[in-house]
Order: sequence, then C-alpha cells, then structure tokens
Amino acid sequence: MRVAIIGVGLIGGSFALALKKARRCREVVGVGRSRKNLVVARRRGIIDSISADVAQAVQGADLVLLTTPVGQFERAFRAMAPHLKPSALVTDGGSTKRDVVAAARRGLGRRIGQFVPAHPVAGAEKSGAAAASADLFKGRRVILTPLKENTPASVRRVKSLWQACGARVNAMSPAAHDKVLAAVSHLPHVLAYALVSELKGRANAAALFAHAAGGFRDFTRIASSHPEMWRDICVANRDEIVRELRRYLRRLKRVEKLVRGGRGAALERLFEQAREARDRWLKAAWR
Amino acid sequence: MRVAIIGVGLIGGSFALALKKARRCREVVGVGRSRKNLVVARRRGIIDSISADVAQAVQGADLVLLTTPVGQFERAFRAMAPHLKPSALVTDGGSTKRDVVAAARRGLGRRIGQFVPAHPVAGAEKSGAAAASADLFKGRRVILTPLKENTPASVRRVKSLWQACGARVNAMSPAAHDKVLAAVSHLPHVLAYALVSELKGRANAAALFAHAAGGFRDFTRIASSHPEMWRDICVANRDEIVRELRRYLRRLKRVEKLVRGGRGAALERLFEQAREARDRWLKAAWR
Repeated sequence: MRVAIIGVGLIGGSFALALKKARRCREVVGVGRSRKNLVVARRRGIIDSISADVAQAVQGADLVLLTTPVGQFERAFRAMAPHLKPSALVTDGGSTKRDVVAAARRGLGRRIGQFVPAHPVAGAEKSGAAAASADLFKGRRVILTPLKENTPASVRRVKSLWQACGARVNAMSPAAHDKVLAAVSHLPHVLAYALVSELKGRANAAALFAHAAGGFRDFTRIASSHPEMWRDICVANRDEIVRELRRYLRRLKRVEKLVRGGRGAALERLFEQAREARDRWLKAAWR
Repeated sequence: MRVAIIGVGLIGGSFALALKKARRCREVVGVGRSRKNLVVARRRGIIDSISADVAQAVQGADLVLLTTPVGQFERAFRAMAPHLKPSALVTDGGSTKRDVVAAARRGLGRRIGQFVPAHPVAGAEKSGAAAASADLFKGRRVILTPLKENTPASVRRVKSLWQACGARVNAMSPAAHDKVLAAVSHLPHVLAYALVSELKGRANAAALFAHAAGGFRDFTRIASSHPEMWRDICVANRDEIVRELRRYLRRLKRVEKLVRGGRGAALERLFEQAREARDRWLKAAWR
C-alpha cells in the first residue's frame, strides 16, 4: 500500500510510523510547507520520499492522510481531487469535524465518498515530525464521523488502519463530535492559553513565573500547543467553544462567590466531587 | 536531632525522609488524625514512633514541622506552645502565610520567635504518607516568610534544613507570598476543580469523559488534590484568590469575544505569546 501524508507533523508522522511498524504500508510520500521538517521526516524513516505538491503526492496513492491545520484543508482537498485513484481513500487528523466535512464537500466534489473523516484524540504539546512516535495512538481514541456517501467497506478499511495504529475507534456525527470535543479539549486549551496570557502581561510576571511549580506546569502544558492549529480549531468550532466558554464563565462566577463568602463546606464538597469524578474517569478510561 | 511531624502526609512525610537521607536527624515522631496513615508512615520508615497528641510529640523535639491542612494550625500551635523546648524551632508546610502567621501569633504567644514560616512549593495531587518521597523537594522552591521576632540564627537554621532536603530557599513577606501563590497556584487549582465540576454534572458526562484525553488529564491533574487542604487555602487566602478569579474572568471574557468574532489572527497572536512565555519559563526555571 502506498500512503500520502499531507502535513507530516506529530499526527501525520506518527500515523506513518505506526502503519510501517504494523507492516500495513509499503511506501509513504510526504508533502508539507516546511522543507526542513520534511527532511527530518525522511531522515527518521517516517516518509520515503518528498513530493513537490499535493497533486503529485496523491498520484498512485491508495491512502491519503490530511494532517495540516484544518484551515488549509479545503485547498488540499481541491488540489488532490483530480488526481485521486478511484480506489483511493482519504482520511484526516482534524480536531474539528463539521468544517472539515464542509471543506471536503466543496473540495472533493463527486469524490466525497472516498473521504472518511477521522479525529485521533491524541494530541501533544509537541509538534513536527521530530515529535512523531509509532506509539502515539496506542490505546487512544480515534473518532470517525462517516458520511452517507461512504461505502461500509471504505469505513471498515479506514477503521482498520487506525486500529492497526493501536487506536480504539468509535463513530459519531460531525456535530456530536464538535460538541464533545469543545467541552473536553477545546475549552481546556483556551483556558490554559488564557491563564498564561493573563500572567505573562503582569508587571511582576518574573516573580510569578519564578514561583510556579508542578501544578502550573501540568495545567498549562496544553498552552504550549501549536498556535496556528489552535487558531483554526477556535475559528472552525467557534459556536460550540463559545457555548462552552459561557457555561464555564457562569460556573466560575459561582465558585468565585463561594470563595468570596468563605463558604468552606460548599467548596470542600465541590472539590471532593470533582476529585471523585476525575479519579473515577482516570481508573475507567485511561490506560 | 529529634523531629516532630504534625500531619505526616505528602509534605511532612517527604520532609522526614529527606532529612533522614541527608543524615540531618536521628529520630522522627509523628502525630496525626489517621492512625492508619501513621502506621503506613512507620512501616515506610518515615517516622520512628507515633505520638498520642501534639503536646506529647513536641516534648524533647528540636524541630517541629506542622503539615496539617492550615485550618488546623491554630489548635496545633496552642497545643504545642506549653511543651516546646526553648531551643526548639517550628516550621510549617502551609500553602498560605498571612493566616498561618496570625494563627501562630495567637497560638504560640510569647514563643512566636521560635516559628519560622515556610511554604515548600512542591505539592502533588497525591496525598498521605504513602505518597511521600525523599526527593520531593529536590530543586523545588521553599519560600520562607520570616518574622521580626525570629533571630537570624533561627532563620538560617530552618533555611539550611530545607536546603538539606534539596530545596532552593528564598524569602518574602507573608503578604507578597499570598499574592504570588494566589496567581500561580491557587487560581489554577480553582480553575481545574471548576472545569471537572462543570462537566461531571452534565447529562452527557459519560460521553464527555469517554473522549477526554491527555490534555484534559494534565490540565485537571490538580483537581485530584486534597479537598480539605484546598478548602482551607481558599478560605485563608480568599481576598487574593477572589482578586485573581476576577482578573481571570475579565481575561476569559475578552478571549470569548475573540472566539465569538472569529478573530483568528488575534487568537493566534495570543496563543503564540502564551506558548513563548511558557516555553521560556520551562527552560529557565524548571529543572
């Protein structure tokens, strides 16, 4: 099997490494904006050759993985559409799905049935081919949002490829996906970025950062995520993210009131219930 | 040197283990509310004996470390005051300092000069003697907030004990401490608790948690912290925490406006600057 990776970063690179490790592909071609990153990818054995552009990369490919920031998806779909083999399948790594499906419909036109949208829920604050790992998807979720134009065989095939990477694959609608991810992923990213942004602008920022410790480091880890990728996610999923931000703002105002009133018992109950919920989740869903 | 640990949890237990490893103490006695936890501490070699109460524990002690939740400090100071050797020093592990100093003045009375307040900025979401480690303070900050009643020799001695645990020790006023920690520690804890609290109450909570991944796990790690300890911190430092919550709420409303308006360029700039600030901090201050 010949695979084309468009955007050979953390997700694209890890997908290629995982498929190679599982002996599910013979040859990987890569294309991307940064020549330097592609050279790293070739040196690490992630890709076997570098393509000049999307049109050339997808020629002869059996599988195309689109893993650029989602803002570039439509142009990539347009560029690949005339050159896709009729038997080729396309999947992606986008963190939003309604906008990706809309871009695919516009860009792929009558080839839309060849695209099986996917979101590997396995990000990291590191980016680029240098950060890719064959084990990134092991035990992680991949959410498919299949289209009515997909054949069951196409969906099965894309599912089995993500499973070959070690992922647990499930399916939902693009709208359901965007709602769930806004709450558990997009919102925390925005909250972490906002905290660092708030503190770094202070006159005493140096003293503040000097006394930040492990809790702060982990809380803000996702504020080291790829700014362009998160810009695109925030723009693409803005209605759901705004909804989540407003709910969170309301919640936080209630907590502020409890702190202001010195309501120790109510705060302890809230903390206790949050800890219980998180610990239950960790035990059940995580490793 | 004989050491008494009041509250043999993560901080108290780690202090005892670190001092023993550095051969800076001969014997450690422990006292606490949970017999089970004290038995764990004795089995792990953290303490050598279990005291019935604070009064008994501090008798003959050269150093007393107070590491219960801060809400119990005043009672502990009162209980130890009549039984402290004149040469004994007292330090603590409280995450707030203005309230701790006030409690010490009330509880210790004329013995106040024997107390050198300290905050080891080295928490973890794990608690209890089982989680203690001789290396917890290695490279971490300990903030002393010395009192005008402390002799320079007392401050030097307490400083050298925390340094023997591997900590980098600096000093500031209790008010400055409470301001800094409200921003870089207390605020993120409240934000993380609030997020889990918000999501766990939803009708679709199970679906949400099922798709939460590594970013969520790290962002909310501190929401698994000790609820009683954080209740006491929120009550003790409420004015500074409320100030921080309000500044954060204002910041978040501005970010919400950017997302709502689809202001991609402004969002990317904010994310980029936050990432830069965090990465600079990580490189400079962390390990």
